[in-house]
Amino acid sequence: MIQFQCDYNEGAHPAIMQRLIESNMEQTVGYGEDHYCAEARQAIIDAIKCPEASVHFLVGGTQANTTVIASLLRPYQGVICADTGHINVHETGAIEHTGHKVLALPNRYGLISAQQIEQTILDHINEDGPEHMVQPGMVYLSFPTEIGTIYTKQQLADIYATCQRHHIPLFIDGARLGYGLASPACDITIADLPHLCDVFYIGGTKVGALFGEAVVFTNSHYDVRNFRYHIKQQGGMLAKGRLLGLQFLTLFSNNLYFEISQHAVAQAMRIREAFAKRGIEFLVDSPTNQQFPILTDKQIEVLSRQFLFSIWTRIDTHRTAVRFCTSWGTCVEAVDQLVAAIENL
Amino acid sequence: MIQFQCDYNEGAHPAIMQRLIESNMEQTVGYGEDHYCAEARQAIIDAIKCPEASVHFLVGGTQANTTVIASLLRPYQGVICADTGHINVHETGAIEHTGHKVLALPNRYGLISAQQIEQTILDHINEDGPEHMVQPGMVYLSFPTEIGTIYTKQQLADIYATCQRHHIPLFIDGARLGYGLASPACDITIADLPHLCDVFYIGGTKVGALFGEAVVFTNSHYDVRNFRYHIKQQGGMLAKGRLLGLQFLTLFSNNLYFEISQHAVAQAMRIREAFAKRGIEFLVDSPTNQQFPILTDKQIEVLSRQFLFSIWTRIDTHRTAVRFCTSWGTCVEAVDQLVAAIENL
Amino acid sequence: MIQFQCDYNEGAHPAIMQRLIESNMEQTVGYGEDHYCAEARQAIIDAIKCPEASVHFLVGGTQANTTVIASLLRPYQGVICADTGHINVHETGAIEHTGHKVLALPNRYGLISAQQIEQTILDHINEDGPEHMVQPGMVYLSFPTEIGTIYTKQQLADIYATCQRHHIPLFIDGARLGYGLASPACDITIADLPHLCDVFYIGGTKVGALFGEAVVFTNSHYDVRNFRYHIKQQGGMLAKGRLLGLQFLTLFSNNLYFEISQHAVAQAMRIREAFAKRGIEFLVDSPTNQQFPILTDKQIEVLSRQFLFSIWTRIDTHRTAVRFCTSWGTCVEAVDQLVAAIENL
Amino acid sequence: MIQFQCDYNEGAHPAIMQRLIESNMEQTVGYGEDHYCAEARQAIIDAIKCPEASVHFLVGGTQANTTVIASLLRPYQGVICADTGHINVHETGAIEHTGHKVLALPNRYGLISAQQIEQTILDHINEDGPEHMVQPGMVYLSFPTEIGTIYTKQQLADIYATCQRHHIPLFIDGARLGYGLASPACDITIADLPHLCDVFYIGGTKVGALFGEAVVFTNSHYDVRNFRYHIKQQGGMLAKGRLLGLQFLTLFSNNLYFEISQHAVAQAMRIREAFAKRGIEFLVDSPTNQQFPILTDKQIEVLSRQFLFSIWTRIDTHRTAVRFCTSWGTCVEAVDQLVAAIENL
Repeated sequence: MIQFQCDYNEGAHPAIMQRLIESNMEQTVGYGEDHYCAEARQAIIDAIKCPEASVHFLVGGTQANTTVIASLLRPYQGVICADTGHINVHETGAIEHTGHKVLALPNRYGLISAQQIEQTILDHINEDGPEHMVQPGMVYLSFPTEIGTIYTKQQLADIYATCQRHHIPLFIDGARLGYGLASPACDITIADLPHLCDVFYIGGTKVGALFGEAVVFTNSHYDVRNFRYHIKQQGGMLAKGRLLGLQFLTLFSNNLYFEISQHAVAQAMRIREAFAKRGIEFLVDSPTNQQFPILTDKQIEVLSRQFLFSIWTRIDTHRTAVRFCTSWGTCVEAVDQLVAAIENL
Repeated sequence: MIQFQCDYNEGAHPAIMQRLIESNMEQTVGYGEDHYCAEARQAIIDAIKCPEASVHFLVGGTQANTTVIASLLRPYQGVICADTGHINVHETGAIEHTGHKVLALPNRYGLISAQQIEQTILDHINEDGPEHMVQPGMVYLSFPTEIGTIYTKQQLADIYATCQRHHIPLFIDGARLGYGLASPACDITIADLPHLCDVFYIGGTKVGALFGEAVVFTNSHYDVRNFRYHIKQQGGMLAKGRLLGLQFLTLFSNNLYFEISQHAVAQAMRIREAFAKRGIEFLVDSPTNQQFPILTDKQIEVLSRQFLFSIWTRIDTHRTAVRFCTSWGTCVEAVDQLVAAIENL
Repeated sequence: MIQFQCDYNEGAHPAIMQRLIESNMEQTVGYGEDHYCAEARQAIIDAIKCPEASVHFLVGGTQANTTVIASLLRPYQGVICADTGHINVHETGAIEHTGHKVLALPNRYGLISAQQIEQTILDHINEDGPEHMVQPGMVYLSFPTEIGTIYTKQQLADIYATCQRHHIPLFIDGARLGYGLASPACDITIADLPHLCDVFYIGGTKVGALFGEAVVFTNSHYDVRNFRYHIKQQGGMLAKGRLLGLQFLTLFSNNLYFEISQHAVAQAMRIREAFAKRGIEFLVDSPTNQQFPILTDKQIEVLSRQFLFSIWTRIDTHRTAVRFCTSWGTCVEAVDQLVAAIENL
Repeated sequence: MIQFQCDYNEGAHPAIMQRLIESNMEQTVGYGEDHYCAEARQAIIDAIKCPEASVHFLVGGTQANTTVIASLLRPYQGVICADTGHINVHETGAIEHTGHKVLALPNRYGLISAQQIEQTILDHINEDGPEHMVQPGMVYLSFPTEIGTIYTKQQLADIYATCQRHHIPLFIDGARLGYGLASPACDITIADLPHLCDVFYIGGTKVGALFGEAVVFTNSHYDVRNFRYHIKQQGGMLAKGRLLGLQFLTLFSNNLYFEISQHAVAQAMRIREAFAKRGIEFLVDSPTNQQFPILTDKQIEVLSRQFLFSIWTRIDTHRTAVRFCTSWGTCVEAVDQLVAAIENL
């Protein structure tokens, strides 16, 4: 069976495995204070052109989201996000477990708007006796979103301006950041991010690493000095922290992170085109590595003989939206076979 | 100014004040282990005809909701409620502060249905990898709801059957329980409640007491033996606990709780009728002590000269829904004046 | 039986009951925004001669401690206190429930010293990888302590200087504040407190009120603007908040708080003297309303026939320390009887 | 510089690296539901001879401790441990962050006794109004302890009997389990553990793996069915879970885990002997991979020229206890050099 059901089916990019082997018996200090982490931090700072940034490496996405959000909110504050946001739906209430409400707004293609955020903040401020409601304390976005869509530069700028006007931080979840930036529809670069948010993370787990997410605070408007305390308390401080540094150092050397992202998106575009040619509709028009065609039960049955993919949501009596994911590790030949199968549907 | 803006403008029913004075210098043990609390517990058990019930007295509603919910959920579970539910909107995230997600469902006139609850539970169970989502662990209802509506006996029975089928408890927030039971539209009695839920609370603060809510566990299917630990940990164990016992003992003597509730609802019905006669519409058809007429800006301005009431929600360019509350303490003469003012609008 | 087992056996001082009756049917707004609360806040500010103070009324001591501490700490911080501190022993882990470690230091007669606090802070700062340990974020003291002792002005000044040097707040739990200030051994006045700590609370429950504690932030070095959010989230915002305001207004009118405290301490001194005359030793030399004589089993048996008091701690094979408490409500005649009984032991 | 300062200076055992490379481009499902995890679970179950055990893989020790403890305690319960316990000192209050108090008992050589535990439980049960104190809800031990000592089989059996008598679970932190079992002083085998506790974890991070801890519930007396919810909520569910399965499968094939542990302990014994021969005292008599000689400032200065080791605790004006750690990765030649240096001190 050829797997398209998610973007973490394989191990890591061979360049990473190579460096892990080479450095294996080297002795370093632990907890992210080794030279690989230092170099990786510098490589990321160079890539985003933001010398004042501070970079921390965490193992996984739920951990990154929880640690960042818990570090930025006061106990009576909540985090605004789309109702489809990963923190709202697929993290087993990890945010609430730290004591904070997720203030979920109706999404439009996975996105929320500056206007919605503004209104939510005003509703909570204007309320008589505002202390009876949770205070909106930050905004969380995913880029790309959980259904593959991306914000335009203008949309992000508007949202960030809203946040700044109300003195609350904007946090961008970049679990699939590479696949967003590599999209033909994307009008921002990674160096734009420090101008568009206060903190974001660069996803490694889904983009070439064995595991790892790089949290980047782009300024010091919020208290980030003690972020390592939060990491440790949340159980996120890896003893052999160098494993994270070494992986991100590799990804941010020789443009690797961006090249492998482009590969994944290119393959996703081939799949999109194949479905479109057959006249198959999509749940959403995604320009990134996740594609959501709406298939008949019969089509699903046929494709399931050769391929693994995810059932997403029932559309009507005989059709269901499904998800095909590509990644850095997707073989061109596998996509060739999928495209052929689609043509023969 | 005559106040109709909420149901806790006054102190307590004079009978309660009388007993507080009489017992003032009596020495008793603390923390709810005195004879007044014991008698009050028995009076409530008698009223609900449920000898196996266990009764605990708390000071306020947010405290009661938080303590009950935190005592019933496992860390990874959430509580299902209407999106208008008090715990979802007006308790500053107290539930989330204890680590639990509020799973808010779209309300219909403040109510949710057995079918919605069933679907929500199934959605979470059926999901591939259910442990990525919060597990629905209990259901929370308000009776009456935050906008004055009430469930029918059949609706409650259906919801409770759904909960029992999935082995999760049903909790009814009765902050205004008396005003619900006293409604002409209500088809249940307080003695029906043990057959319709696992735990409920009898609101005192809004129904004749200085403060106080009586939490009633109607069975021992869930671990309630250690509920006093939860009360203490949540800061809800009143040192002079007898103050709570004495108030509930008074309310549950001589039918007082029900008589004062009927008074409040009767006055609310007079207000409702007055608005209806004038052809004024309502946000919702409430058969209890809260009335939500939709007034023009001009009408609001006129009534505001004599009366205090709450602005609820903007309806259109020139009309706003407002709230008039009655209570055990509402004077017939005050309602006479309000009715006259409405007739002259 | 005559009760000496705690300082909350009775209701409230008659002057408070009188005002509760008088104001009972007055209509006021809720949640502490009424005129009684405003007047009470001013009366306290006048008493402590600290115009910049902000005052909030809460129902009970555990609630006050938890709300203040949770509002001042960052998630990775803990609170330093004596191992005998109320928050460490007798609040069912309410502080830990809000996510914070209690850093308990060995007490000496219920007290901790500036030097101990300094050392604890330095130990945590100096540690290699300090983020592996909880960061000391504030200091909690009780005045008087749980065993009746009090700090001298110099001791408090030294502790506060230590806190200020390390930029962490000092919080004084004054559940029995009146009984400390009324002690012949006390060298501070209530107006000294703003110069000796950042926040304290004035106990009402044990000193003449039905219930109630007045939290006083003496400056704005720490974020106190949003304290009402914390109160609401912790379930501590009383709907009929005026009950708290009215009680503290009464206590801080006509020197009442201090007079009733002096009464209690005077009676405690009579009891102390009676035991001392009989050559009975004490667990600790307490100059306040709690006395801890060490009695033989036989003596306990004899006194138990007439009086209720608390068993404190076993001393040796045949002796046990017990506690006798006086309060604002203790009758001179009851103490006469106790003294006589002691003389006849 | 040759490093002896901790047991996680290197990467992983070469056999693990080899399998990571071989399996790198294999496609598997995520979140620990792959075949490597299944095989690793079986290998561990076989090793401990406990077919009813359930095994879960986590990334790190703080995460493992927090997830296990939070899954077993009710909100009002705390965990008993030694005051030197890792959860009490070196996890930044991660346990308290989940709402639970750590009930720390004075250690003796890092150990606590059944008698201490019994007394602590009785003290909390006997207390008048036990709900004012945290309820002891489980016991946490480290094997070996944080200072290298180990419990005897009899000591563990006594502690477990105490736990069972009071119906609370016993959890053993085995971050260095291999080094304990490999000690010449150890009288238990890994197959004894299911008879000596309810849950333990097998440390991988410090014993040959890149990272990873295997949590083993040895019975189903406590609710472990939903443990995966806890893992996800705590941010501990690794997307590419197979990395954990594959590592533990390798460690539990061909006796590898035990062989590399024996190597580490053998090297530690050489170091111990060298110090002992020179007449140098130890902080504690450790039979495992951590050695704590007490050195003069001069001796520390001399050894520091060639070796990295940890400063542990100041003993007196001129002597300090330091820590030398060996591990699976310690070279015999490095120990040769250290032994030679010690002989020349």
